Amino acid sequence: MNAPMSAPISTPMATADVYAKTALPETGLRNYWYPVLAGWRLGRKPKAIKVLGEDIVLFRDAGKIHALQDRCPHRGAQLSQGSCMYPGSGTLTCPYHGWTFSGESGRCVAKLMEGPETAIPPTTAVKSYPVKEHLGVIWLFVGDMEAVPLSDDQPECLAEDSTWHGFSTWRTYQCNWRVLKDNLCHDLHAPFLHRNAPELILQPIFPHAVQLQAEPTTDRRGIGYKARGGINKADYPGLGQFPPPKETWYRRLKPTGRGKDIDPTKSPAVVKYGYLHRQSSLLPGITLIGRPSGDYFMCRWVVPIDATTTLFYTFSRFRRRGALATLRDRLQWIFWLSWTHDWLFSDQDKRVLERVESQRETLSRTDTGVAAWRRFVAEHARRPPTDHQADHRAAAE
Amino acid sequence: MNAPMSAPISTPMATADVYAKTALPETGLRNYWYPVLAGWRLGRKPKAIKVLGEDIVLFRDAGKIHALQDRCPHRGAQLSQGSCMYPGSGTLTCPYHGWTFSGESGRCVAKLMEGPETAIPPTTAVKSYPVKEHLGVIWLFVGDMEAVPLSDDQPECLAEDSTWHGFSTWRTYQCNWRVLKDNLCHDLHAPFLHRNAPELILQPIFPHAVQLQAEPTTDRRGIGYKARGGINKADYPGLGQFPPPKETWYRRLKPTGRGKDIDPTKSPAVVKYGYLHRQSSLLPGITLIGRPSGDYFMCRWVVPIDATTTLFYTFSRFRRRGALATLRDRLQWIFWLSWTHDWLFSDQDKRVLERVESQRETLSRTDTGVAAWRRFVAEHARRPPTDHQADHRAAAE
Amino acid sequence: MNAPMSAPISTPMATADVYAKTALPETGLRNYWYPVLAGWRLGRKPKAIKVLGEDIVLFRDAGKIHALQDRCPHRGAQLSQGSCMYPGSGTLTCPYHGWTFSGESGRCVAKLMEGPETAIPPTTAVKSYPVKEHLGVIWLFVGDMEAVPLSDDQPECLAEDSTWHGFSTWRTYQCNWRVLKDNLCHDLHAPFLHRNAPELILQPIFPHAVQLQAEPTTDRRGIGYKARGGINKADYPGLGQFPPPKETWYRRLKPTGRGKDIDPTKSPAVVKYGYLHRQSSLLPGITLIGRPSGDYFMCRWVVPIDATTTLFYTFSRFRRRGALATLRDRLQWIFWLSWTHDWLFSDQDKRVLERVESQRETLSRTDTGVAAWRRFVAEHARRPPTDHQADHRAAAE
Repeated sequence: MNAPMSAPISTPMATADVYAKTALPETGLRNYWYPVLAGWRLGRKPKAIKVLGEDIVLFRDAGKIHALQDRCPHRGAQLSQGSCMYPGSGTLTCPYHGWTFSGESGRCVAKLMEGPETAIPPTTAVKSYPVKEHLGVIWLFVGDMEAVPLSDDQPECLAEDSTWHGFSTWRTYQCNWRVLKDNLCHDLHAPFLHRNAPELILQPIFPHAVQLQAEPTTDRRGIGYKARGGINKADYPGLGQFPPPKETWYRRLKPTGRGKDIDPTKSPAVVKYGYLHRQSSLLPGITLIGRPSGDYFMCRWVVPIDATTTLFYTFSRFRRRGALATLRDRLQWIFWLSWTHDWLFSDQDKRVLERVESQRETLSRTDTGVAAWRRFVAEHARRPPTDHQADHRAAAE
Repeated sequence: MNAPMSAPISTPMATADVYAKTALPETGLRNYWYPVLAGWRLGRKPKAIKVLGEDIVLFRDAGKIHALQDRCPHRGAQLSQGSCMYPGSGTLTCPYHGWTFSGESGRCVAKLMEGPETAIPPTTAVKSYPVKEHLGVIWLFVGDMEAVPLSDDQPECLAEDSTWHGFSTWRTYQCNWRVLKDNLCHDLHAPFLHRNAPELILQPIFPHAVQLQAEPTTDRRGIGYKARGGINKADYPGLGQFPPPKETWYRRLKPTGRGKDIDPTKSPAVVKYGYLHRQSSLLPGITLIGRPSGDYFMCRWVVPIDATTTLFYTFSRFRRRGALATLRDRLQWIFWLSWTHDWLFSDQDKRVLERVESQRETLSRTDTGVAAWRRFVAEHARRPPTDHQADHRAAAE
Repeated sequence: MNAPMSAPISTPMATADVYAKTALPETGLRNYWYPVLAGWRLGRKPKAIKVLGEDIVLFRDAGKIHALQDRCPHRGAQLSQGSCMYPGSGTLTCPYHGWTFSGESGRCVAKLMEGPETAIPPTTAVKSYPVKEHLGVIWLFVGDMEAVPLSDDQPECLAEDSTWHGFSTWRTYQCNWRVLKDNLCHDLHAPFLHRNAPELILQPIFPHAVQLQAEPTTDRRGIGYKARGGINKADYPGLGQFPPPKETWYRRLKPTGRGKDIDPTKSPAVVKYGYLHRQSSLLPGITLIGRPSGDYFMCRWVVPIDATTTLFYTFSRFRRRGALATLRDRLQWIFWLSWTHDWLFSDQDKRVLERVESQRETLSRTDTGVAAWRRFVAEHARRPPTDHQADHRAAAE
């Protein structure tokens, strides 16, 4: 395991440049894979999407999915209004003058209105995006370098389909992706904002005032959070108790003491599977939240659409432990988690996040994880190889 | 009484800088009290409003109203989505991480997720606004200095609740506040635009081509208008008569000669009460229009929301003259004035004003009052005391 | 006949500045007549329109139509909210203070609120636009010079009402006028985009891969297109045949060989009437498309509203050849052309054009006509006479 990050990460801190939201690019981190669309939503018609501010057309031909820049270089028509006119050829044809592009390379392979003899220079092309279908979801690599393998960008519970099963949902948020990702950095908004969430009706409220430590994950794809201590209630002078005892009738049903199981050394997740963190943030905008059992992870993927819109993809992943357990997991998700978590619980955040505006923040003790995440991104986000590196590699081959 | 303002005020004039609309601040005059919301509209939930371009949250706790900047300094959430979690404490709690602010001072008094022991620097605060409830309306002082007493900014008919009674209505206009206030400077649009207003069905049309004089009011809070002369009809060569005789059937019902009662020396308002002006414009954007009886004033308050939206608050104020007169006044307002004036009459203006656009105006004879108002504002609007003045005062104490 | 334009016009070409869309003004060519409104749509109430980015009010008084700038110079109200208060005088009165403007000259002839004696300087005026009603349509000259005769800007089939009859329709496109006009420059989108248009259900598809030549028209108002060669189908290697044989069932009904009649030397249009071009583009944004018979023209007029909106006026014009032919023409238009062409056929373009965006184009063989049009406009668009020319003319008179 790596050494924990330097001291400032786990102490309160002022807003410094490296922790500022704006240290991260407004339309997202390039050169990563992102989930962009449920596979079943792409039928026979090409589909226009926007990811990281880029207009992209997806189309499916002969069982393969392709992704191209959604703009014809000829006269600027939208390729997604066109069609796969020649099924099986893996091409998409512009609706306006019939320029036809290879889904694989992006090159223009025919200008239908000019006859078959027309010579087409290889520079007549649109950008093509690496694309894959995995777990019923279409994944896109958006960036300026050759794509890495898809599995490089996926946590184990997504990459290993034979060991894990599950469901995915998505939601569109009217906020910048950084605001949404900040919300997922173990910033202790949960014990407050979600204290009355229906999903937690029989569970204790999360403890607050915990001591949070952020450290790089062993694979160095991100940072993991360790929370220690924390209290379940407290008296605030001049105000009263938190949580307010009479706020809802059903809090009387709640057991107490969830704080106990925060110790990362005792849960099955640690003892049986060796997971070091219950929650972690991975590049490019992934949040992985596990249960103490080690048999369930929620993998939530923040996908920037543009500067003010974000796609929020949630994968609920259960460890395969036999047919009966799988059936139980599925029923639990369908009849309980799908609506109490992905819908009701998350909408408590959505309502707040869509109104967040912050030219100037005041980061505080609870924002250790937020600051650590921003700093990690600023230092570790993937960048295209420089020419020097590329030369080096070429020489080595 | 003060001397009338210098000659140019009452003569036609070209557009000079001091008379330009843009000499007045686009989002309104700061450092004044403004009516912002009917008291009954603020219930148990905090309410977001915008005044002079500032986002403000109003909340009511333990019988007192508070007004704070509607943005949490922590991570930028909207305080108006929060709640008065600790009733009786006069605080408002942010929905996101539970930062709790004093309505009185704006200071953060608790960060609920950090435990009661957290030290909070006094600079962790939001702006708090002086606020009062008066005449069933919530009043806010928006500016950059200590609030003056509310009564300093109110004409007598509003300040003296024991002598006057009445009603208030409001309307939102999609135009800049300056366009709406210009409309209320006795600019002689009324004899034209309102010539067929149902409210005036039995009254003569206001005379036109009057001689208008603008002079400071005795309390120097604004300017008063004096109109002399004027005609009820005229023949325009090549066109015909104004008002056009056959324009509406019901104008035949109108008596003639309202021009007579313009003489400011004869009405009960003057003789009995000593009012010098039937109409005046007061800082920060008030129009006071009286009847010759001196027993009724309409006080119309232009409240800038932002550069393109304006709240228009109208107070109809009747002098208390015994229970029977009060009953008659109330019935008159409810069954006649409320809809013929505040609704139908004013909507004739609203329709025109919401389409006004003027990069360049051509002020003319009728705009004496408009020019005088703009000049008065440029010269007399309240400004925060400079350091020098403040030192001076401190020394005197 | 003039010599054809220089070589580059009829060969493929790279995007050069003179061919760039932006070489043409974004809000349209000034100093031309434009059709702006069906005459029957202008009743007793003044009507606000926008042409070439200018807000204009049209009004009809005593059988004459006038067009003025739709903004009162006094305080910026919208004149189109006013009325023709003095019928027969050809004036329009502002709704706010009654300033009254001559429709003929634009001069202010009365300030109704200031009395009839007020002196009004001749500079108090709004811009007035030359306007005419012709073929049931209101035409406006928008520019910065004295209007040319309306017939100067009209093709013969519109100018000569005694020889031609017909109908007109209009449609509003949410795109820049240049994008729409480009679409009408014989750019060979038709054999592709309209290949399955219901209007052409019994006709062959237009041939593609034709050789297009663009040359100035004899009257030098624009350019005419000559197409030679072309093919009705072809095999594209790796793709298949164009048009795809199984695309629609009803293509089996189509006859073949429309390519034959492209030869411009054989049709009645040439032999009988001497027309040199089946299709031409005329200034300021007119497309004239004739049938081989020479007895029918479609005259389509692109009228810029503002930078992102365009009015598309279509005149279907039939040669008068006796009452029976006229009846047949009218029935054909009403029951067939009106909806299959002006509606269904053109909406295939509208759908594509409203999504076109092109910072950078790749003009190609099919864009010979587009490039020629842009170049023609850049070189030949009407400009107001310079002072020197004006002096010259004045001296000659």
